[in-house]
Amino acid sequence: MFGTVLIANRGEIALRVARTCRELGIRTVAVYSTADRDSAVVRFADESVHIGPPPSRGSYLHIPAVIEAAKRTGAEAIHPGYGFLSENPDFAEVCEDEGIVFIGPPAAVMQKLGDKAVARSMMVQAGLPLLPGSTEAIDTVTEAQALADSIGYPVIIKAAAGGGGRGMRIVRDAADFARAYRDTRLDAQAVFGDGRVYVERYLESARHVEIQVLADRYRNAVHLGARDCSVQRRHQKLVEESPPPGLPDSLVAEMGAAAVRATVAAGYVGAGTFEFLVDTENRYYFMEVNCRLQVEHPVTEMVTRLDLVAEQLRVAAGQPLGYGQEDVACAGHSIECRINAEDPARGFAPAPATVRSFVAPGGPFVRVDTHLFDGYRIPSAYDSLLAKVVVWGPDRAVALARMRAALTELRVDGPGAATTAEFLHSVMDNPVFREGKHDTSLVGDMLFGGSR
Amino acid sequence: MFGTVLIANRGEIALRVARTCRELGIRTVAVYSTADRDSAVVRFADESVHIGPPPSRGSYLHIPAVIEAAKRTGAEAIHPGYGFLSENPDFAEVCEDEGIVFIGPPAAVMQKLGDKAVARSMMVQAGLPLLPGSTEAIDTVTEAQALADSIGYPVIIKAAAGGGGRGMRIVRDAADFARAYRDTRLDAQAVFGDGRVYVERYLESARHVEIQVLADRYRNAVHLGARDCSVQRRHQKLVEESPPPGLPDSLVAEMGAAAVRATVAAGYVGAGTFEFLVDTENRYYFMEVNCRLQVEHPVTEMVTRLDLVAEQLRVAAGQPLGYGQEDVACAGHSIECRINAEDPARGFAPAPATVRSFVAPGGPFVRVDTHLFDGYRIPSAYDSLLAKVVVWGPDRAVALARMRAALTELRVDGPGAATTAEFLHSVMDNPVFREGKHDTSLVGDMLFGGSR
Repeated sequence: MFGTVLIANRGEIALRVARTCRELGIRTVAVYSTADRDSAVVRFADESVHIGPPPSRGSYLHIPAVIEAAKRTGAEAIHPGYGFLSENPDFAEVCEDEGIVFIGPPAAVMQKLGDKAVARSMMVQAGLPLLPGSTEAIDTVTEAQALADSIGYPVIIKAAAGGGGRGMRIVRDAADFARAYRDTRLDAQAVFGDGRVYVERYLESARHVEIQVLADRYRNAVHLGARDCSVQRRHQKLVEESPPPGLPDSLVAEMGAAAVRATVAAGYVGAGTFEFLVDTENRYYFMEVNCRLQVEHPVTEMVTRLDLVAEQLRVAAGQPLGYGQEDVACAGHSIECRINAEDPARGFAPAPATVRSFVAPGGPFVRVDTHLFDGYRIPSAYDSLLAKVVVWGPDRAVALARMRAALTELRVDGPGAATTAEFLHSVMDNPVFREGKHDTSLVGDMLFGGSR
Repeated sequence: MFGTVLIANRGEIALRVARTCRELGIRTVAVYSTADRDSAVVRFADESVHIGPPPSRGSYLHIPAVIEAAKRTGAEAIHPGYGFLSENPDFAEVCEDEGIVFIGPPAAVMQKLGDKAVARSMMVQAGLPLLPGSTEAIDTVTEAQALADSIGYPVIIKAAAGGGGRGMRIVRDAADFARAYRDTRLDAQAVFGDGRVYVERYLESARHVEIQVLADRYRNAVHLGARDCSVQRRHQKLVEESPPPGLPDSLVAEMGAAAVRATVAAGYVGAGTFEFLVDTENRYYFMEVNCRLQVEHPVTEMVTRLDLVAEQLRVAAGQPLGYGQEDVACAGHSIECRINAEDPARGFAPAPATVRSFVAPGGPFVRVDTHLFDGYRIPSAYDSLLAKVVVWGPDRAVALARMRAALTELRVDGPGAATTAEFLHSVMDNPVFREGKHDTSLVGDMLFGGSR
C-alpha cells in the first residue's frame, strides 16, 4: 500500500478520501487554493500545500502545481476525487511520466472513454445497447441533419468532449436542427476546446440509471449494483438511490453483467460508472462512462458495505480485487440528497455565505459527508455542494422516512445562507417520487408544472 | 403507533430516541432540567417541558413532574432511556396507573428482575448457569460468612438493589469478610435505601459478555447476538463491541438461546440485556438483567442493522415482533468508544467545560451519538458521557483501524476541556486488546500495571 497519497481536490470529497487514507495508515497531503486555506481537509491532512489562487485553473486544475506538490511531499499516488483533474487524461499521463500513481484508469483508457463518440463506438462493439444515433462525431451539418431526420425527433446533440450534463441541446423539430447543431459546436469549442458533437435520439420519459463497476489490473471486474439518479435539475443530480426503485433485479443483473464485460474489454482499472437511460418499457441504453468516483458513491457503499475509496486505493496499488461477483451482496435501500448552497426561491442561485451554525443530522444509518463547520465561509469560486445526506433502511419506505427526518434536522444558518434542503424535502414528499415512478422530468414538473 | 411520546431523559440518548420517533412520525416531548434548558434535544423536540432544577431528584427522577408533563402534553407513552427512571418499577407502575405506556417491561417483571437476589433465583429455574453463591439475600453475617467460606475466596458481596457496577465489594480473605459484609450493607442502605446483599464467587479473570434480547407481548422473543464489554474502569464500561472477539459462534448461540428462554419465562416485554461473565474456559455465568436500552446498543444496531428504539416503540405499542430468530443476521464487527468529559491525567476526574469547538469524526460506517455542539456547556450535575463513537467494519481489524482514525479526528476543545478519547486510543493500540484476549482487568493493568 502507498505510504503517502496526495488528494487533488477540495470540499467534502477531499475529506472523505483523507479519512479512508488515515484508516489504511496512509499519510495524506492536501492541496488547497487561497480560498480554501482554512478548510476541513487542510486541518485534517498530515500535510497541506498551497497550490495557487482561485479560480481553479490557477490551482486545482493547474497540473504543474499539483505535480510539484506531490513531488515535494513524497506522495507516491494522487487521488483526484471527482471533477477538476479526475477525468483529464493529460493529467493521468503526466502522473505516469513522473512515476506517480494516478488513482483511476490508465490515461489511454480514459482518453478513449472520455471521448463520448469513441466511447459509443467501443460500447457497441462490447455489445451494449445504444440509443439510435451516431457512433462517431459528425462534422457537417448536412450529414448531421440527415441522421437526425432518419432517427426521428426529438434528438439530442451532445459535445463529444462534454460530460456532467454540460454541452448538450435537445431538438424537437427538424426546422430547428441546423441552428442548434451550429450553436452546440460553438459552445463545445468554447467550453471544452473541442467542437466535435454527435447526435442521438432523445427520450422524453427516461430514468437515469447507472452501474458502479470496480476492476483490478488483472482483468477481474465486478459491478456493485445500480443507482437511480433521475432526480435532476438541468442535468445536475439532486437525489440518488440504490437500488433503483421498481427496476427488476434481473434487469440490474443484466445491465451489470453488460457493464462488467465492457469494463474488461476496455482495459478499465479502478472504480467507474456506466450511465444508462432506461425507458418506460425498461429498455436500457448506454450513455457514457464516468472514469472516476461519483459524488453519489455513498449509496452504493451503504447497500454493499464496501468502502469504495479503499477499493480504489487497493487496486491502484496493484492489489487484486480478491472477490468475485458472487461475493458482492446488496442489502436494503439507500438514498442520498445533495445539499447545495443554492436558493430555490431565487431560481437556485448560488448562495455563498458564512455558516454561523451548522447542525448535521445523525442517528442510526444516517451518514453526512461534509466539509462544513461552524464559521465556515462558503467560497463563491467553486461548486455549491455543501453536504451529502445519506441514509440506509431495510427498504425504501424506511429510507424515505429516515431521509425526511434527517432533512428536517439539518440546519445551515448564517446571514444569506440558503440551501436546497427544503426543496429536497418536498421531493421526498412528492407522490410520484414516493411511488418510485418518477423520471428525469420530475424536478422540472415540480418547479414549472408538467403534464402529470 | 403512538401519536406523542415523552422522553424522560437527557443527553445523547434523549436525542437518539427523539430521532427515531421523528422517523416514525411520532410527535416528541422533551423534558429538561434548568441545567439542560439549551440542550440539543430541547431544540430538536416538537415540544419541551421544564421539570425542575438539578440535581436529578428534583427533575429527571421526580416522578410527579414527569407524569404531569406527559399528561399536559398528551403523551401516550414515555421512553425512559437508560439510567434515571428507566429501571424504576414504581415509575412503571405509576405510568400504568395513569394510562400512559411505559416503554419497557411490565412493572411487576421489572420489580422481580431488579432485585438481583430474586433474579438469580428466577434464572436458576430458567436453567441459566450462575456463579456459586446465594440465590437470595442473606441477612446475617454468620450465614454469609459460612456461605463465603464454602464458596471459597475471592467472593463478591453485592447489593440486591444495586446495578451498573455500584454497591459491591470483593473479599479475598476470610478474615476480611465480616467487615466488608457490614460495610456493603450500610452502603446499600444509604445509596439504594435497601440494605440487602448477596454473595457469589468472584472471578479474577473474566470477560463481560451480554446478550441483547427483544420480546413482544405475545411471548415472541429473539436475541440479537452478544456484546463484549470487558473494557471497564471501576465497573464502568468504556469500550463495547459485537461480536465478542474470539468467542465461538456456537457459544453465543447457546447463551442467546438460554437468554431467550429466560426472557419468555420471565414474561419480559421490550428490549433487555442479559449480562454474563465468561471465564477463561468459556464457561458463562448469569449476572443480571438490565431492563432497558443499554448505552452500548448501537454496536448491536450496526451488526444487525435494526433500530432498537424503533423495535422498542413497536412492541410497546402492542405490535408483534413479526420475525423470528432465523431472520436475525449479524454481519461484520462493530466497536463503540464512550467519550467522557473526564481527565485521565487527573485520575479520570470529571471535566465540565464549555465546548468552544467540537469536531465529530465521520465517513463511511462511522456513527457518532452525541448531544454536543459548539458552545455547549457541559453541566457538572450529570454523568460525564459526551459522545459515543461507533464504527462498523467487515471484520474486527477494519473496525479497529476505523476506530483509531475516528478517535484521532474527534476534537472537543475549550477551556478546561478533557476527554477520554486519547486513553481510548491507547486501548485500541493495546496488544492484548488488539488480540481480543483481554478481560475486565485490562484497564486496571494499563493504568496501574498488572501481572501481564
